[in-house]
Amino acid sequence: MPEPALALAAGSVGTVETHYLELPEPVRLDCGRELYPVQVAYETYGALSPRRDNVILVCHALSGDAHAAGFAKTPSQEGTRDGFGAEDRDGVAGKSLGWWDGMIGPGKAFDTDRFFVVSTNLLGGCRGTTGPSSIDPATGKPYGPDFPVITVGDMVRAERAFLNELGIDRLAAIAGGSLGGMQALEWAILYPDQVDAIVVIASTHALDPQGLAWNAIARNAIMGDPAWQGGRYYGTGRAPEAGMGVARMVGHITYLSAQAIAEKFGRRLQFADDIRYTITEPEFQVESYLRHQADSFVRRFDANTYLYTSRALTYFDLARQYGGGSLQRALAGVRARTLLIAFSSDWLYPPSASAEIEEAMRALGKPVELRVIEAPYGHDCFLLEEPRQTPMIRQFLEQHSPAKSRSGG
Amino acid sequence: MPEPALALAAGSVGTVETHYLELPEPVRLDCGRELYPVQVAYETYGALSPRRDNVILVCHALSGDAHAAGFAKTPSQEGTRDGFGAEDRDGVAGKSLGWWDGMIGPGKAFDTDRFFVVSTNLLGGCRGTTGPSSIDPATGKPYGPDFPVITVGDMVRAERAFLNELGIDRLAAIAGGSLGGMQALEWAILYPDQVDAIVVIASTHALDPQGLAWNAIARNAIMGDPAWQGGRYYGTGRAPEAGMGVARMVGHITYLSAQAIAEKFGRRLQFADDIRYTITEPEFQVESYLRHQADSFVRRFDANTYLYTSRALTYFDLARQYGGGSLQRALAGVRARTLLIAFSSDWLYPPSASAEIEEAMRALGKPVELRVIEAPYGHDCFLLEEPRQTPMIRQFLEQHSPAKSRSGG
Repeated sequence: MPEPALALAAGSVGTVETHYLELPEPVRLDCGRELYPVQVAYETYGALSPRRDNVILVCHALSGDAHAAGFAKTPSQEGTRDGFGAEDRDGVAGKSLGWWDGMIGPGKAFDTDRFFVVSTNLLGGCRGTTGPSSIDPATGKPYGPDFPVITVGDMVRAERAFLNELGIDRLAAIAGGSLGGMQALEWAILYPDQVDAIVVIASTHALDPQGLAWNAIARNAIMGDPAWQGGRYYGTGRAPEAGMGVARMVGHITYLSAQAIAEKFGRRLQFADDIRYTITEPEFQVESYLRHQADSFVRRFDANTYLYTSRALTYFDLARQYGGGSLQRALAGVRARTLLIAFSSDWLYPPSASAEIEEAMRALGKPVELRVIEAPYGHDCFLLEEPRQTPMIRQFLEQHSPAKSRSGG
Repeated sequence: MPEPALALAAGSVGTVETHYLELPEPVRLDCGRELYPVQVAYETYGALSPRRDNVILVCHALSGDAHAAGFAKTPSQEGTRDGFGAEDRDGVAGKSLGWWDGMIGPGKAFDTDRFFVVSTNLLGGCRGTTGPSSIDPATGKPYGPDFPVITVGDMVRAERAFLNELGIDRLAAIAGGSLGGMQALEWAILYPDQVDAIVVIASTHALDPQGLAWNAIARNAIMGDPAWQGGRYYGTGRAPEAGMGVARMVGHITYLSAQAIAEKFGRRLQFADDIRYTITEPEFQVESYLRHQADSFVRRFDANTYLYTSRALTYFDLARQYGGGSLQRALAGVRARTLLIAFSSDWLYPPSASAEIEEAMRALGKPVELRVIEAPYGHDCFLLEEPRQTPMIRQFLEQHSPAKSRSGG
């Protein structure tokens, strides 16, 4: 399945810049509140066609941002490529590479020679889009815990309003992994006539109860850190770094498979080949890796954004929200052709969740395709297994080329 | 396989009391230090035979204690039965039931009509045996972080020294689950001529790298809590309760299978059938369950003991310690007949780990038996699946009855 020739031929979108746009209207939220003002951070790659019918919206996961491809013109403090357990992918000379650079560019899965790819930072974010660290106009201070609780549907509504400002009515595709895939699914339900196709990778229609538990643990770690200060830590010189570090560690281990951890670290010791009898310092390589990941994450990510986004992840439940408990009923109005990609070793977003979506759509007679990739790296596969996803996605999008997007079936 | 009739017929050891014994000599530790004085908390059930050849030593897991069976005469603040994700098993009127009461008693797996069962709190513990919360004779204050780092081997040497004081040279069996199983294995290596049989349940010869990671996360959660104060929190009126709570939550989820969590809680909400849009309060039943478990644990368990015991768990690696990397070489001197029990859904101590022990012992021509119980509750099965373990253990011990303990083969 891999297409090495294609990967070699694929190019970069080059140096890119994040832009910012203020929405003209308040965003109505599921919780009943309205949010205003709302700024959206975004990047675009490729060229918008005259008919504006070649747009792909890319949605990021829990800790990503708008910088999905190319080299950042203004280097961020850290590469965001390590959105999951995957290695940092910082470019040369401090220029950070986008988190999905392997998938977006000329000749790549999301081919910028054909498509105009748009990537935004999600609502509630901390990388340019309005979130809990933004200034609350009512107080002139950061929202903190006064930021309204948001849902994946709210993220999608903000993305819809943002695309209106770009004059984009219709999308050739929406694509994302994990939380990004949830956004793609909810787009297809909320705006069935405006989405031709969705690419839902390593995602689900509702996190399973173990996933709820991991998220609850991460939030408890953050909120249990006294430096969180009830969420009002901005400007105090303190932030819940210890709690965030633990949250990140839990995340990392759930993004990897047991096999991946065993292959990467085994039980190798930190120092030579013997133990040093210490509780406080890492003795095993996997322990120091976790500390390193935690340390680098807390420097670049806002704890409240983590809390709000984690909460949105747990609420997301298409059957509850739109189907009175039935996934099939929830998906009844979807018109987008759907490609689901799942990974055999992903125990956080297991292939069975994608299979449930496939089954419901098949029962409804809707065009759906599920590809399960056998790979050992767990949830992280969605960032690591780009060469194997590329031909699947290219082939799927081929049927949606602007020229035949209305006739493809 | 279940033997309900037998379970119904089985009786209780009744009301019991924890006793305390001071070892006459220092315990030599793997780290090179000596520990003195060492007090050991213990309970016994059944009667010692005149030939002192009917002794079974029961070893507890991470958060257990010496109170393994019967009702405590002096009720502890909490039942210790919830050593893992298993439900509390508090008796009536505040009398707490031992953590393995279903397994120890007249007619039970460890039949007190035949055997003299001894249970101790492990070295480094906080339930009566000397540990980091004990007074350091050098300072007159609790050891805290000055307590020496201990290993499973150290726990075993302390148990050996303790049994000497009871005049017990030889053991008919040593049994334990999880960390308790590790102790049984290390006993069989350290004292091959003094152990007739070991019963190793839901355990391993070395935690896998994912298990190392979970333990590192738990310790980081505790040490990252400022209330830990470098381990010197005794007498300050503060303890790392938030960090301990998170450590406990991580533990709980790893002790359960995804299926068990799904069956027990599903995605059921806390309040009626709708969400309330709150970050700080539990919205799902699994979230409030985790908080409850964390809260009850921090009240009864010492954070430093958790750290030290968790560290001992990670060091334990029979192949490294005794075999120059080879498990087979490590087990070459074992003479105890071995019963291994594992549970199909236990992903923390997977059946494959027990199978590796079985394979090594078979290759050495040693008597070993592996029973894998198909059950969906994860690592917790070792406390929950007592009726199915009982006939396996009774049958195994039958071959080791005092009368024929030397001829059985």
